[in-house]
Amino acid sequence: MNEKQQKSAAWKHKLHEIIYEADTPMGKWFDILLFIIIILSIILVMLESIKSFDAKYHTYLLTAEWIITIFFSIEYIARIISIKKPHKYIFSFYGIVDFLSTIPLYLSFFLAGSQVLLAVRALRLLRVFRILKLVRFMGEASQLKEAIKSSRAKIAVFIYTVLILSVIMGTVMYLIEGAEAGFTSIPRSIYWTIVTLTTVGYGDIAPVTDVGQIIAAIIMILGYGIIAVPTGIVTVEFAKQGAKNTGEKTNSIQEIHTNTQVCRHCNADRHKDDAIFCYNCGNLLNEQ
Amino acid sequence: MNEKQQKSAAWKHKLHEIIYEADTPMGKWFDILLFIIIILSIILVMLESIKSFDAKYHTYLLTAEWIITIFFSIEYIARIISIKKPHKYIFSFYGIVDFLSTIPLYLSFFLAGSQVLLAVRALRLLRVFRILKLVRFMGEASQLKEAIKSSRAKIAVFIYTVLILSVIMGTVMYLIEGAEAGFTSIPRSIYWTIVTLTTVGYGDIAPVTDVGQIIAAIIMILGYGIIAVPTGIVTVEFAKQGAKNTGEKTNSIQEIHTNTQVCRHCNADRHKDDAIFCYNCGNLLNEQ
Amino acid sequence: MNEKQQKSAAWKHKLHEIIYEADTPMGKWFDILLFIIIILSIILVMLESIKSFDAKYHTYLLTAEWIITIFFSIEYIARIISIKKPHKYIFSFYGIVDFLSTIPLYLSFFLAGSQVLLAVRALRLLRVFRILKLVRFMGEASQLKEAIKSSRAKIAVFIYTVLILSVIMGTVMYLIEGAEAGFTSIPRSIYWTIVTLTTVGYGDIAPVTDVGQIIAAIIMILGYGIIAVPTGIVTVEFAKQGAKNTGEKTNSIQEIHTNTQVCRHCNADRHKDDAIFCYNCGNLLNEQ
Amino acid sequence: MNEKQQKSAAWKHKLHEIIYEADTPMGKWFDILLFIIIILSIILVMLESIKSFDAKYHTYLLTAEWIITIFFSIEYIARIISIKKPHKYIFSFYGIVDFLSTIPLYLSFFLAGSQVLLAVRALRLLRVFRILKLVRFMGEASQLKEAIKSSRAKIAVFIYTVLILSVIMGTVMYLIEGAEAGFTSIPRSIYWTIVTLTTVGYGDIAPVTDVGQIIAAIIMILGYGIIAVPTGIVTVEFAKQGAKNTGEKTNSIQEIHTNTQVCRHCNADRHKDDAIFCYNCGNLLNEQ
Repeated sequence: MNEKQQKSAAWKHKLHEIIYEADTPMGKWFDILLFIIIILSIILVMLESIKSFDAKYHTYLLTAEWIITIFFSIEYIARIISIKKPHKYIFSFYGIVDFLSTIPLYLSFFLAGSQVLLAVRALRLLRVFRILKLVRFMGEASQLKEAIKSSRAKIAVFIYTVLILSVIMGTVMYLIEGAEAGFTSIPRSIYWTIVTLTTVGYGDIAPVTDVGQIIAAIIMILGYGIIAVPTGIVTVEFAKQGAKNTGEKTNSIQEIHTNTQVCRHCNADRHKDDAIFCYNCGNLLNEQ
Repeated sequence: MNEKQQKSAAWKHKLHEIIYEADTPMGKWFDILLFIIIILSIILVMLESIKSFDAKYHTYLLTAEWIITIFFSIEYIARIISIKKPHKYIFSFYGIVDFLSTIPLYLSFFLAGSQVLLAVRALRLLRVFRILKLVRFMGEASQLKEAIKSSRAKIAVFIYTVLILSVIMGTVMYLIEGAEAGFTSIPRSIYWTIVTLTTVGYGDIAPVTDVGQIIAAIIMILGYGIIAVPTGIVTVEFAKQGAKNTGEKTNSIQEIHTNTQVCRHCNADRHKDDAIFCYNCGNLLNEQ
Repeated sequence: MNEKQQKSAAWKHKLHEIIYEADTPMGKWFDILLFIIIILSIILVMLESIKSFDAKYHTYLLTAEWIITIFFSIEYIARIISIKKPHKYIFSFYGIVDFLSTIPLYLSFFLAGSQVLLAVRALRLLRVFRILKLVRFMGEASQLKEAIKSSRAKIAVFIYTVLILSVIMGTVMYLIEGAEAGFTSIPRSIYWTIVTLTTVGYGDIAPVTDVGQIIAAIIMILGYGIIAVPTGIVTVEFAKQGAKNTGEKTNSIQEIHTNTQVCRHCNADRHKDDAIFCYNCGNLLNEQ
Repeated sequence: MNEKQQKSAAWKHKLHEIIYEADTPMGKWFDILLFIIIILSIILVMLESIKSFDAKYHTYLLTAEWIITIFFSIEYIARIISIKKPHKYIFSFYGIVDFLSTIPLYLSFFLAGSQVLLAVRALRLLRVFRILKLVRFMGEASQLKEAIKSSRAKIAVFIYTVLILSVIMGTVMYLIEGAEAGFTSIPRSIYWTIVTLTTVGYGDIAPVTDVGQIIAAIIMILGYGIIAVPTGIVTVEFAKQGAKNTGEKTNSIQEIHTNTQVCRHCNADRHKDDAIFCYNCGNLLNEQ
């Protein structure tokens, strides 16, 4: 490694620390800045969608759009440069989201409908947790995730039952009510059944016949009752999680998440607090 | 037993293994094929119900309908032939559903309204669990069923209370609101009360008088509160089930469901993994 | 006591056993008959409320109404005669309900609006539990009641919070939205807030301004979240009840409710199975 | 301290005891009176908001308004005089609410829109708990508060997830449905998504395209399912609280709240039953 290469490596290393980690003051500031820009970019997309507002301030909005796009472009390139194996980032979930939320303005030169991609930007919000390194929240979120994960099979059975019920009841309502009341086809009747079963109840479609209203009442009471099932599942799972955590795992979970470092080689995060080597690829975490 | 009979028996035995079980590759393929055709047949019924779509592609839909009906017919006959006591299958719940979902097209030659029976096809979806032999899911489903079963009496009391409340409140609202607001009769008022109590709230009928709105508000808060009751019941029941299963029964439940064999004599399923004789009728499960 | 008095006493005693208890075959038949007539009387009131139906079959409905009224009258008088202290029955909750559901037709000779009282008949449904002597259900119901009772204070705090929230939010929405969107007065705004907070959502009144919709969204998420509170309260209470019952009290509760006898002196029920004297007034339960 | 000063101090001390505490009969009567006037003042604001009512009885309402304002003014001044460090009260939450709910009528001489402040009066309802010294309820409320507090982080994660989901789904629906169905802008689409996700379902905006209805159905089932999450969180937290309280803390919590005294020096309340000195500033609670 000659001097030039060493310099470049040191520079890349520093960039990596700023962008991917939050140990240094610079890293923290970068994360806060990024968070603000993501929020701003989403507000911008929202404002653009309001016709009257867009008509008035189109030039300002477009300028702001360009500034944000350029910032995102620089960030995206910096992320690729500073990591040792760029494809690990590029083909990761966040890598794809970052890419998709950067390109729409460039695409608008070639394609008309690329505005659609602007909406992808909302997905960037998912990175907020990571950005803010909300240690405490991460712990809670992972607990929530764990509880939902381990009740996955039960929830699948539940959703499957709800869907079957909707198909059967929707078909029955289609046969009873007919087109005048808005039940124009079986799919639409199924849609209505889901609206009713989940107690949303828009009222755009509503039964008018006597038999239809009786069946609707049965569907409502069913829906009102079976909401107890996912609630029961998740509650029991939470209780188990809570018991487990109080027992033994509390500290370990906390520990894992306080370390904000990201491996430069394989992009893995959630290292232990006193980790020196990456738990995933075995490389040094802090090479000088 | 002469040679011909033996041959016939062997052939029937093989057919039984393919249709009723999922141990052999052939049996698995048959199940997957059946699953796809059931889904297709339901989509077909849905598409037919969309007038504009049916008008355009009526011939294609009818052809597809005939193909599915013929497949279902063959399957139904094969199920009857391959089992030793056909009436066990014919008069079982699935037997009746299979029959009803096969005949509508044949009936349409004689009767006009037989389209209605097409809707029964949706019930076939219930067989999906059995088809996919979702061992894991079955375990979960049976746990759900167990929990709901043992809280049956409590749920009955709850539903009874909800109905009484609806009748009383519906009558009160009928007396207060009158026909202008849509409360044209007591049954309709009861329907409205159920719509409100279950927090569905279509808005097709809504109170307009001051007293009516106050009572409506009370019904809403009541409904909002008493949803806690079934949830509480089911949650506690789940917790109990969970505790029981962790305690002792986990393995046994799992074991029972991994065996996909169905007795040829009495149509019983859910045999133990190492079962040689049917637990229900005592006959050999695998006769050669 | 001369012979005549003795005869009368024996006759009254027998009547008491038929009407108030379900030990004898006669008593059981009477209860089933009463149950059917109560249901019929409610269906009758419902049918009368449907104008088109009432116009067609007015004579039949009136006749049926008279038959039921006469049956109720006889039952009411029999109840008063057969009990030793009639005022205990007359001024009890069921006594008043029985009286009110008997008189409306008589009153209709003198007063016009007495039809209103017909609605009181629905309250008679409450006696169904008692009539059917649903031992098992009674046990469950009393468990439900117990759970709700012991979480009374918490539920009161919850409802109070919901009401305060509704008053504050309703006032805010009134100031923001104004009369065009349907928020014509503060009480109406509070009504809307309750409709939204309980996730009923009729849609007869809905915010149209931007600020109004933001606040509406906040109210919705609040309502969506705080439903967790009563659910949590009741669930924990159920769990406690369950634990208590499994522990010690299971048998005693069951025992109490299997005895269907009612004391002739003080009208108290829920005697122990082997009770000879009334636990309330100390008199013999079965005097010959 | 000369005699006059002593007299003034004694007088102030008595006033403090009446207004801030409920130990003496006078104090209790004052609290009940205050409670009634707060309720009356809120009913008054409500009645004023009903145009037709206000038009008829404007003079009466204004008179009542003046009487209540004068009472509130006197109470406010008395509260300031009787306390040793007035700024502790003035800048406390209740101090500000009391001030804001007193001034609107005075302001109406100078400003037009000051009616808005009348609505602040509703906040005074919050003081009811304190006024009624509902020892039992306070204990329950603090338990509720404790449970919600300790599940704060989990609830924050949950609300954050709901918001992200709403932003993403709202944007998707905006792109699919377009302006004809009411999805005129992304913010409005997000509003609709929240209306649907929380199962409120007004129906003022409802999807009309097929794809839109499918996505709406998914959002509904999602919303129907994720309501389980806050419920699960709060239930588990309640269960923990319950366990803790039964264990050790039951008595202490009860004790703390039965003492209705408020320190004259620092305005702190919730003193222990046998407290002689303020736990906050160390001054004597009852100086003579």
